[in-house]
Amino acid sequence: MNAIDIIARKRDGYALTAAEIDFFIQGYTAGDIPDYQAAAWCMAVLLRGMTSEEVTELTLSIARSGQMLDLSDVAPLVADKHSTGGVGDKVTLALGPMVAAAGQPMGKMSGRGLGFSGGTLDKLESIPGWSSRLTIAAFKRQLAEIGLVVAGQTSDLAPADGKLYALRDVTATVPSLPLIASSVMSKKLASGANVILLDVKVGEGAFMRTLPEAEALARIMVKIGTQAGRRVVARVTDMSQPLGLAVGNALEVKEAIATLKGEGPADFTQLIVEDAGLLLHLCGCIPAAVDSNAIALRTLHDGSALNKFRQFVVAQGGDPAVVDDPDGVLPRAPVIHTLTSPQSGWLAAVNARTFGEVTVQLGGGRSKKEDTIDRSVGVVLRAKIGDRVETGQPLCDIHACSETEALAAAERLLAAYLWSAAPVEPPILVKQTIYP
Amino acid sequence: MNAIDIIARKRDGYALTAAEIDFFIQGYTAGDIPDYQAAAWCMAVLLRGMTSEEVTELTLSIARSGQMLDLSDVAPLVADKHSTGGVGDKVTLALGPMVAAAGQPMGKMSGRGLGFSGGTLDKLESIPGWSSRLTIAAFKRQLAEIGLVVAGQTSDLAPADGKLYALRDVTATVPSLPLIASSVMSKKLASGANVILLDVKVGEGAFMRTLPEAEALARIMVKIGTQAGRRVVARVTDMSQPLGLAVGNALEVKEAIATLKGEGPADFTQLIVEDAGLLLHLCGCIPAAVDSNAIALRTLHDGSALNKFRQFVVAQGGDPAVVDDPDGVLPRAPVIHTLTSPQSGWLAAVNARTFGEVTVQLGGGRSKKEDTIDRSVGVVLRAKIGDRVETGQPLCDIHACSETEALAAAERLLAAYLWSAAPVEPPILVKQTIYP
Repeated sequence: MNAIDIIARKRDGYALTAAEIDFFIQGYTAGDIPDYQAAAWCMAVLLRGMTSEEVTELTLSIARSGQMLDLSDVAPLVADKHSTGGVGDKVTLALGPMVAAAGQPMGKMSGRGLGFSGGTLDKLESIPGWSSRLTIAAFKRQLAEIGLVVAGQTSDLAPADGKLYALRDVTATVPSLPLIASSVMSKKLASGANVILLDVKVGEGAFMRTLPEAEALARIMVKIGTQAGRRVVARVTDMSQPLGLAVGNALEVKEAIATLKGEGPADFTQLIVEDAGLLLHLCGCIPAAVDSNAIALRTLHDGSALNKFRQFVVAQGGDPAVVDDPDGVLPRAPVIHTLTSPQSGWLAAVNARTFGEVTVQLGGGRSKKEDTIDRSVGVVLRAKIGDRVETGQPLCDIHACSETEALAAAERLLAAYLWSAAPVEPPILVKQTIYP
Repeated sequence: MNAIDIIARKRDGYALTAAEIDFFIQGYTAGDIPDYQAAAWCMAVLLRGMTSEEVTELTLSIARSGQMLDLSDVAPLVADKHSTGGVGDKVTLALGPMVAAAGQPMGKMSGRGLGFSGGTLDKLESIPGWSSRLTIAAFKRQLAEIGLVVAGQTSDLAPADGKLYALRDVTATVPSLPLIASSVMSKKLASGANVILLDVKVGEGAFMRTLPEAEALARIMVKIGTQAGRRVVARVTDMSQPLGLAVGNALEVKEAIATLKGEGPADFTQLIVEDAGLLLHLCGCIPAAVDSNAIALRTLHDGSALNKFRQFVVAQGGDPAVVDDPDGVLPRAPVIHTLTSPQSGWLAAVNARTFGEVTVQLGGGRSKKEDTIDRSVGVVLRAKIGDRVETGQPLCDIHACSETEALAAAERLLAAYLWSAAPVEPPILVKQTIYP
C-alpha cells in the first residue's frame, strides 16, 4: 500500500477501503505522508466525493489518530451537542445546565471563535476566573460530581483533524462535505459522548448558506455517528439573523443567564427547550409518555438550571456572583451607541454575518488564530426580522471601546438591514430535524 | 490575486485567466507558492480540465519560467521534432541528418530515458566521445554551421516544468492531458524552434495506450503550438510493437546508421522518410509541386544524410569511425543469446513494453533517475507482427552482460509474443496525421 496509489484511486472515483483510509490518515499524522500528497488527496476527495462508509471510516481514523476518551466509568450515557457555528449562538451556555439539571450528564469539549463565528470558550471566559483548562481526570471528576463540564479540546484529541484542517485552509479544500463532516464528528467520537445533538446552522451567518447543503451535511453527520454506534440527531436551524438578541462574548453570557432565569428572548428559549427535550428523550432518561420539552422547560422555571449553571461556574473557578449580578461582574464596554432606524417599515433582513464581522471588527473576535479579544464588545439587537420599526426607533445597541469604533460599526451594521413596506413573517427557526 | 483563490476557481470548474495561470506558475517556480498548493491545483486541473486557451497560456507561462531561446539570428526557420516516447524509437538519429541534408536546419534539445522508454541522448552517447553538453552559443554555432544539433536540455529551460513534473510524479497527477501537453510543448516553445513535428506514440509500448487518448493529446499539442505562433503537425504512430528491429542504445545507433545507408528496416525507413518529407513541406523550403518525401528519400540514397550524420558526430566530439564501422566502435555486449520460437504460426503480438522493460532489466535503461546504464545491451528482433515463424526459428537476439541475464530476459520476452494459426496483418504504422 502506498500514498500515490491511494490518491490515484480516489482521483479515479473509486471508494477507498478502511485500510487505505487509515494508512493515509495515520501516515499523514505521523509525517510519513507529506503535505503535498495530502493536498492532492483532499482535492480528489472534494471533487470525487466519498460514500457514507468511506466518510465513517475517515472519521473513525481521524478520531483514532489521538487519544479516545472513554467516559463509561463516569456515567452509562454522556450527552454532547455541537453547532456548526453561527452568530449569537450561546446555546451551550444555557442548554448544558438544563440537561444536567434534568439529571443527564453532559460533557463537552469546545473550541474558540474564528472569523465571524463566535466560540463557546471565548464566551465563558468572560466570567472572571472561569477556565477551560482541565485535565482528563478533572473533566471526568466534574462530570461525575455535578453532571456538567465544558473544556478546551486537548491537543491529543484527533490531532489528524488539526493538521488536515490547517492544510485544507490553504489549499482551497475546505468546502467538502465528507471533509467537514469527518472533521466535526471525529472530535465528537474521540471525546467520548454517546448521545450527540447536532445543530447545523444555515443562512447568511453560517458556513452552510443553503438548506440543501445544510441538510446534506446534517444527514452525513447523523449517518457517521450512527454507524460509529452513537445516538445522533441533527437539527437544521436558521442563521439568517443572529440567534437571540446578544452578539459578543460577555453580552451573550448575560443573555444566557437571563434565559436560565426564564427571561430570555423567545427564539433562543424555544430552541434550547426543544434541544434539551430532544437530548433528554434520546438519552432515554425520561419515560416515553412524559413530554421531555416540559421537563426541560421546568428546569428554567424552578431555578434548577440556573443553580446548575452556578455550580458549573464555581467548579471551573469562575466567580458565581455573575449569576446574580452579571452587569457588576462581566466586562463592560465604555461606549454604548444606539443605532436607530432611518426609515419606517417591517424588518425584512438582519444579516447575521455582518453582526459577526462587526463584532470581530470591534475587537470581540479573531481574524487570525493569534489575535487577542476584548470580551466586552458586541451588539445587542432591539428588533429582528418581522418586527415593525418606525423612523428613529432603535435597531440595536453597539457596545464598543470608543465612539469612533462605534460609529464605524453603526455604518456597517446599517447595511445589514432591509425594510419592507408590507408585513414580513419571521423566519422559521428549526428548518428540519434529522433522525438516524 | 492569491494562490488559494486560483485553486478554488479551478476546483469550481472555471477557466483561469492568463494572469492567474502566470501568477501561479511563476509563483511556484520562485518558491512563493508551496508544493502543497501546487499539488491541490494539479489535482483540480486533472479532474476539471482546461480549455485550449488555458492550456496555451499554461504552456507559455511554463516556457517563460526560464530562458526563451531565440534562434532567428541563426536561420529564418528552425525545425524540431518530439516523440512522446516509445520502444526502439531512434527517429531523431536518422531524421535529423535527412532534414539537415535537405537544407533545413534542425536544432533539438533532448532528454534521457526513464522507465521502459529510451532517450535520444542515451543512445547518442553510445558513440565514443559524443557529448550533449553544449552552451547556448555552441548550440547556435553548430546549428548555423552544419544545420544539425542535438543537445541536453539546459536547467534554465522551462524550470517550472521540471519542478511540476517531479511533484506530479508523487501526487498521482501525471495522467492529465493539459499537464502532459503543456509539459511537452513548453520545452519546445522555450527551445526556439518554429516548425515542430510531434510523434504521439500509441499502444502497449507508449504512455498513451488507446487511440482516442493519443489523438486527444496530439490535437491539444497542435493547438497549443499553433496558438503560440508555431507551425505544428502531429502524427499518431503505432507502438504496439517496437519501432524497427533494434531496442537498446548502441544497437539502435547501429540500426539508425544502417538506415542512413538505405539498409534499414522497412517500417522505420517509411516513418522517417514521411517525417522528413512532412517537416520539409512545413518549412516551405521545397516548392509545393515537388514531392517532399522523394527529396527526403534521396538523402538516404545519395549519401548526403549519412554524410550529415558524420559531420554531426564530429561536431559534438564523437568518433566518426562509427559511421563506417559501427561494430568496431560501438560498445558490444559479451553475450548474444537467440530466443527461438517454441511453436509455429503467424506472430500476432510482440508487446513493445516488455522489450523496453527487459532492456532496463538488462542494464540498458533507468528505473530511477540516478541509475547508470550499460549502452551495449538490448534486444534485436528477428520477426515482427504478421511474420510467419516456424518452431525453432529465431524470434530475437538478446544482447546481455551474462548468460544468466540473457536467460532471464529470454523467459520474460517469450511472454511478449502471441501466435495465430491464421495469417495476421501487420499494424498500420501511422494511425493519424493531425494538422492545425
